[in-house]
Amino acid sequence: MKLQILGCYAATPRTMTNPTSQVLEIKNHMFLIDCGEGTQVQLRKHKIKFSRINHIFISHLHGDHFFGLPGLISTFRLLGREKELYVYGPKGIKEAITLLLKLGDSWTNYPLHFHELTNREPEIIFEDDKMVVETIRLNHRVYTNGFLFKEKPGERKLNVEAVEKYKVDRAYYQNIKNGKDVIMDDGTIISNAKLSSDPPQPKSYAYCSDTGYKPDIVGQIKDATALYHEATFLETEAHLAVKTKHSTAKEAAAIAKAAEVGKLILGHYSTRYKSIELFKEEALEIFPNVVLADDGKFFEF
Amino acid sequence: MKLQILGCYAATPRTMTNPTSQVLEIKNHMFLIDCGEGTQVQLRKHKIKFSRINHIFISHLHGDHFFGLPGLISTFRLLGREKELYVYGPKGIKEAITLLLKLGDSWTNYPLHFHELTNREPEIIFEDDKMVVETIRLNHRVYTNGFLFKEKPGERKLNVEAVEKYKVDRAYYQNIKNGKDVIMDDGTIISNAKLSSDPPQPKSYAYCSDTGYKPDIVGQIKDATALYHEATFLETEAHLAVKTKHSTAKEAAAIAKAAEVGKLILGHYSTRYKSIELFKEEALEIFPNVVLADDGKFFEF
Repeated sequence: MKLQILGCYAATPRTMTNPTSQVLEIKNHMFLIDCGEGTQVQLRKHKIKFSRINHIFISHLHGDHFFGLPGLISTFRLLGREKELYVYGPKGIKEAITLLLKLGDSWTNYPLHFHELTNREPEIIFEDDKMVVETIRLNHRVYTNGFLFKEKPGERKLNVEAVEKYKVDRAYYQNIKNGKDVIMDDGTIISNAKLSSDPPQPKSYAYCSDTGYKPDIVGQIKDATALYHEATFLETEAHLAVKTKHSTAKEAAAIAKAAEVGKLILGHYSTRYKSIELFKEEALEIFPNVVLADDGKFFEF
Repeated sequence: MKLQILGCYAATPRTMTNPTSQVLEIKNHMFLIDCGEGTQVQLRKHKIKFSRINHIFISHLHGDHFFGLPGLISTFRLLGREKELYVYGPKGIKEAITLLLKLGDSWTNYPLHFHELTNREPEIIFEDDKMVVETIRLNHRVYTNGFLFKEKPGERKLNVEAVEKYKVDRAYYQNIKNGKDVIMDDGTIISNAKLSSDPPQPKSYAYCSDTGYKPDIVGQIKDATALYHEATFLETEAHLAVKTKHSTAKEAAAIAKAAEVGKLILGHYSTRYKSIELFKEEALEIFPNVVLADDGKFFEF
């Protein structure tokens, strides 16, 4: 899994900081997550091919997560896109985009599908044979979903030495990878455990922005390989976090700790603070593996 | 009059080029003209105070002239703006902005007034004691207006030597500036022409983007101090200009020549060309005083 941060600052785009957007590369997909104003320029800057983006996930309809979407959709059209585009986001997103395209008489020449979200419980919104995307219910001023990107367990790993030793025919290899035992011509059963080993642990990435402190998501994101959790404020501004339904770095770390995630990635910083290092310091008091998102930063896990 | 180009390239924002937006400073106003995606960042970059912008003019509802507006309006709110904001643009602009604010539950805490345009004839849309703004009907794929910003004639210039020579009382000075003759205590009439000279010629700025070649605007923009006219294409792509209802540099120059404007500013370049100098070369064959707009460029006239 590769994660490219395009923007990770709260509120308004500035000369040096961008509102929220990121690209997750997972199992051959390039998923765009949120799309603040200027996202298309960030995509160009980081040389991400527009044509590889087929799925866009929008957490909520605040401008700093969403106002880059109309322009990106229009640019896809201008670039001659023909491939289908899927947009997942809160109910209303279709009406908004459709109205803007109508006013500009600029309908896309590619199929544009909206998957509008209204569910108050987590739900699977995308699935193929290798992975799945679930919503995570968050607590913000407007209806907001996080997203949990989960690899499916892969095939078992063939034990090459063992299959040669038992002289198992190649025709059985796929069955072995699927976990089946092998019945030899003489009726002997060779158990799967002897012929294969467990597949690597499936990875998962949880994206949680924007949200107030919401410990009931812990069960769903348990053991995630990486958790991106918003930390708009420090504890010194905890009252503002409560008021605006955002989190502090400490709260993000408490979620990471309870969910025992592999790595906590902080982001969505308020620009009121002199240095984003302060967020890391605060979170490190609670949880050991903290990294800071920043515009242009790249993670692999 | 001061004109700051924030963006002047056609179609999509790129790493180094911005879609259309400019700020005209005239008679103590800072008018924002068009608002492509990323305009708020350009405003910051060029250190234009957000609080000085009270009037925004949108030519048409294509994304590259308009998709920065929702974000700018939201940012005004986040910055605690209380002053009224006036937005002039084609019918539909109110519905679009209102829907986006509603979806984000992010109503402005300042009064936001929309002046929606539907007229097929030029009309005055803003006026105070020093200046006036008229629409210019353009010819594009959707309903589009240019804008003509005109200073009103100023007061006549007092001839200080003459008023002293004739011993005119100071109480009459304003009347003289207003063009009136002076009647002295002994009944003598001193004609205004002896006591004052003509005010400076009022300046005007015509903004015409986007439009196909439309010579019938010439009468309205006659003698403009400066004309910004789109030149999306060169003559080699004249067929594309016709098809997409844009202009070539040559056509822009022909308008400038017929209208006998002081200066032609070219902009809205397609990014297909290697150098924008090509636009200037083509226009110079028709009209002598051609300058190229470019992002960040500043003009004073």
